[in-house]
Amino acid sequence: MPEIRLNTITGDWVIIATERAKRPEDFSCQKEKRELPSYSERCPFCPGNESMTPDETFRIAKNGMWSVRSVPNKFSALSPVGNIEKSKDDFKYAISGVGLHEVIIETPQHNMTTALLPVEQVYDILLTYQNRMLAFYSDPRIEHVIIFKNHGVGAGTSLEHPHSQIVGIPVFPGQVMGRLGEAIRNYYYVNFGECLYCTYLKGELRDGSRIVAENDSFVAFVPYAALSPFHLWIFPRKHDACFASIDEKQLLDLSYILKDILLRLYKGLDNPDFNYMIRSLSPRGADSKYFHWYIAIVPRVSQAAGFELGTGMFINTALPEESARFLREAI
Amino acid sequence: MPEIRLNTITGDWVIIATERAKRPEDFSCQKEKRELPSYSERCPFCPGNESMTPDETFRIAKNGMWSVRSVPNKFSALSPVGNIEKSKDDFKYAISGVGLHEVIIETPQHNMTTALLPVEQVYDILLTYQNRMLAFYSDPRIEHVIIFKNHGVGAGTSLEHPHSQIVGIPVFPGQVMGRLGEAIRNYYYVNFGECLYCTYLKGELRDGSRIVAENDSFVAFVPYAALSPFHLWIFPRKHDACFASIDEKQLLDLSYILKDILLRLYKGLDNPDFNYMIRSLSPRGADSKYFHWYIAIVPRVSQAAGFELGTGMFINTALPEESARFLREAI
Repeated sequence: MPEIRLNTITGDWVIIATERAKRPEDFSCQKEKRELPSYSERCPFCPGNESMTPDETFRIAKNGMWSVRSVPNKFSALSPVGNIEKSKDDFKYAISGVGLHEVIIETPQHNMTTALLPVEQVYDILLTYQNRMLAFYSDPRIEHVIIFKNHGVGAGTSLEHPHSQIVGIPVFPGQVMGRLGEAIRNYYYVNFGECLYCTYLKGELRDGSRIVAENDSFVAFVPYAALSPFHLWIFPRKHDACFASIDEKQLLDLSYILKDILLRLYKGLDNPDFNYMIRSLSPRGADSKYFHWYIAIVPRVSQAAGFELGTGMFINTALPEESARFLREAI
Repeated sequence: MPEIRLNTITGDWVIIATERAKRPEDFSCQKEKRELPSYSERCPFCPGNESMTPDETFRIAKNGMWSVRSVPNKFSALSPVGNIEKSKDDFKYAISGVGLHEVIIETPQHNMTTALLPVEQVYDILLTYQNRMLAFYSDPRIEHVIIFKNHGVGAGTSLEHPHSQIVGIPVFPGQVMGRLGEAIRNYYYVNFGECLYCTYLKGELRDGSRIVAENDSFVAFVPYAALSPFHLWIFPRKHDACFASIDEKQLLDLSYILKDILLRLYKGLDNPDFNYMIRSLSPRGADSKYFHWYIAIVPRVSQAAGFELGTGMFINTALPEESARFLREAI
């Protein structure tokens, strides 16, 4: 009998289709992979080609070279220049597409992937995220900032060289508002003054069957109602609504656990395409009691079709407990 | 300057990335296509192979043959047998995966597509949808029913023979609940007692620039804040929360406009992969004042990546007015 589980964080139900379930091994992405060179002369993100990108906004220097750099996105979805103009004409509400959009170049090496980088390099990437998020939020036009990585064609990337993106938008996304509303309701009416995410994390730790890795500051797990196979969350143990508030020790612990989890996916599923997203609110907000920042990792091993588009619900063909066990044993 | 538009139906913002925008022609799916045979002896949906599917639940007969038939899905995501058992263990809420899942075989012809079917055949498909939706909702275990079609590999289908699916679930999806909440709020506080969707449709008709086709009962348009290129909605003019309530005249008008729109996509974009979904509530509900059923069509010409997963917002690289003009001129 399949089971329908409630994802209390997103407020939605997930069908765990155990009858259709595949073995974890069956999700392995054993498609033929092209060997990449460590340097590509036409790649705008490779060392020596710095002039092919817009002017750098931040750089971490090491041994006379850069380790990580951030640059404005040449194909930005939003315009960095201009004021916010609002217009309402009949039923048409619009805001001018002002915003910030940068690319974070994660390593000088063209053919690398986070899973295989030294922890110090992952630390530099996260430090850059923190710097850019704070810089973005210091722009009063920016309402919300999202940091994400698209790895592989199936996850929507068009450039091979390892990079992530940060986008600052002048509106607050409806989906995030919905999540925040859910968190506030839970804070007051369900948990009597405790953060929904803190409560949830305690539950996952008590249960234990879906935990993949943990350290002093973070816990990585396949959630009880994971939306898709190997869907993972990395939660900070310390309550905070904003990623950019983390201290040096947490940043280092995050480097370890992020690399560890991505390595488990890399080895267990043979370098799958994936997205990860840092879900965070602004450091300005007064809402820090309710929301809890975290990282969501979505390996692209299944596809959303009409059912998912039409209901917002997901059908997960892998048992979360088995996905977690598989990843625990992957290295 | 890009523009960020509010989708008042979904309550979310959409970035219309005009600087990145492609010409409508650039979305054409000119990948090489395999010629399909009109009959395949191993296809469970081809005539003569009826024994390969579970027992038929409904059939429309014509000239001694079937025109459309529905059968339980052999690989159902939910179990049709059993009672709803609810369990709550600590933070884990679950409901047994009881539900209905059928496949609607749209034509005996293996290599057909809705765009090229005679209108009478499209009528038979819609009549089957109506019959199955009413049958599903007559099962007291079913809280919500979704009808959808996945066309092409990029839209998540695994079988070539034209078919759609209907799923009845024992829970009410969070996303649909969110939309309903938005509609109720608008009914009372924004529109003072008028359906959000009726109000919205009047606006689109007044504006006119995104209308693609219309007839006595339906209007097909690219919404002002379309989530993706060529994203389309077909709204009934008559207010009703449930698709299954439509009468014969409406069913016929819907056959014409659905075929017409799919033909425009077929010709204009060279047979793109697409999903369509019928968004509807139950005929039982007392909520019929607020919600308005409709069909959403999503050609899969763009890909959701980290930005979309992390914010729920979309970046549309096509101007909705241009997508609409292109489809108006496509036939």
